[in-house]
Amino acid sequence: MNQPFALEITSTQNEKLKHLLKLRERKTREQSGEFLIEGYREILKAYEAKVPLKSLFFSQERFLGANEHALIDKIGKSTRLYSLKGDLFDKYSYRHRPDGLLAVASIARQSEEEFAKAIFKKALGQAPFILLAESIEKPGNLGSIFRSCDAAGVHGVIVCDKQTDVFNPNVVRASIGTLFSVPFIECSLEAALSFLSKHHIKLVAATPHAKEFFTEVNFKEGIAIAMGSEQLGLSANLMDKATIKVKIPMYGAADSLNVAAATTLMLYEVVRQRHFV
Amino acid sequence: MNQPFALEITSTQNEKLKHLLKLRERKTREQSGEFLIEGYREILKAYEAKVPLKSLFFSQERFLGANEHALIDKIGKSTRLYSLKGDLFDKYSYRHRPDGLLAVASIARQSEEEFAKAIFKKALGQAPFILLAESIEKPGNLGSIFRSCDAAGVHGVIVCDKQTDVFNPNVVRASIGTLFSVPFIECSLEAALSFLSKHHIKLVAATPHAKEFFTEVNFKEGIAIAMGSEQLGLSANLMDKATIKVKIPMYGAADSLNVAAATTLMLYEVVRQRHFV
Repeated sequence: MNQPFALEITSTQNEKLKHLLKLRERKTREQSGEFLIEGYREILKAYEAKVPLKSLFFSQERFLGANEHALIDKIGKSTRLYSLKGDLFDKYSYRHRPDGLLAVASIARQSEEEFAKAIFKKALGQAPFILLAESIEKPGNLGSIFRSCDAAGVHGVIVCDKQTDVFNPNVVRASIGTLFSVPFIECSLEAALSFLSKHHIKLVAATPHAKEFFTEVNFKEGIAIAMGSEQLGLSANLMDKATIKVKIPMYGAADSLNVAAATTLMLYEVVRQRHFV
Repeated sequence: MNQPFALEITSTQNEKLKHLLKLRERKTREQSGEFLIEGYREILKAYEAKVPLKSLFFSQERFLGANEHALIDKIGKSTRLYSLKGDLFDKYSYRHRPDGLLAVASIARQSEEEFAKAIFKKALGQAPFILLAESIEKPGNLGSIFRSCDAAGVHGVIVCDKQTDVFNPNVVRASIGTLFSVPFIECSLEAALSFLSKHHIKLVAATPHAKEFFTEVNFKEGIAIAMGSEQLGLSANLMDKATIKVKIPMYGAADSLNVAAATTLMLYEVVRQRHFV
């Protein structure tokens, strides 16, 4: 089988390579409407989810598996390919262990109506199961939250009053590509609350001041689990609007869990109640 | 009240400052028997847990709260104090938002007997509840695992066949100081298995190949929950020795959760069964 045509790039002066570094910055992502996806697993998931891939930079010397060529063949039909030597590729990789694949993709956003449709399609008649992430600061946490949402079968994620944008390369990485399999929107808290109210979805907040534990409350109705920033937790405004408040039992010296860990607990309590009780 | 005496350091040529940078490396930590603790919350927890603090570097310009002076007063009674200007301090901080406090502490390790004693003391007659972390690679994950162990009331953590050592500054940071409140040992897998067997503690492994879900198995006996590396999961050797195997339901595109998220789920299922059923 013929490999699709790839242009070789040999110099760091190349404008396309310079653009790769700039795409690590939010400003450039917003201006260009593009973002980075690195790694076999992530690029494959993006391809399968029909994320528009604009270019693929690869370095054969860095491949870690046996399937990279097959992926390049598939992607190469509609995407520009650029081949790099290993040393040069490493300068643009943002991973510990580069696997020789880095793609530039177009940012595609769902409108509120498309998001609502996607949720109800995924829910298959079940009560909606939403995650509301408010002002999460660390890309690793936001990515890990997406990964847990995917695993728990969350119908949609609302990222509101964002501190980190979902197209940050470290969100994509920590999500291991699940960013492409879970419907999401970014919006203001106000828009998020109005969306939930319109669709009769109850807001659930985890707070140490709640009376009931998270395993004692009914999660079978349509709900949005709200999780707040690492430093400050949920905003007072959001806390006010929550109709269900629950706490996670804490038996140690610290008074909170990592936000992605706490999110996973909350999500899987919904799973337990809906599938195992 | 008089502030305790602090020597001012003004130059990056100072040997003590150079040592701070070297302590980011595992080799230096092992050779010197020292490690770094940064941040008010973490240093306070270490102080309360009687971790031997050897020196404290601070920069008043960077303080974020109102209690730093009180902490310095307490620590200063037995610890050398060094004062730095903000700009200089920033060079030695490894946080996004330095809060002007960085300590050097002595590495103190528990022997196997001390660890066993600490576990049974913490268990207060309950069946032992252990977390076995095998070859975790990312310091952020290992720290987050400690944070969840603290919250869930785990009696002891066994870190075996380590990839990252628990005294890595990013483990300390992600643990938010809970490293100092949960008993732990670092050892080989062989030593860990022999320890568990000696104390009649059953080994629980989470694997997608298990028949039963993690919410369906009895966790009220003495157990050690085993969690493996990010890339490879649990080793074949450990999997062979596990007497209880469970799976976490996965409804999405990815086949696994982040290891710290999965650990938290497993730990809180033990909490639920022991405290809420």
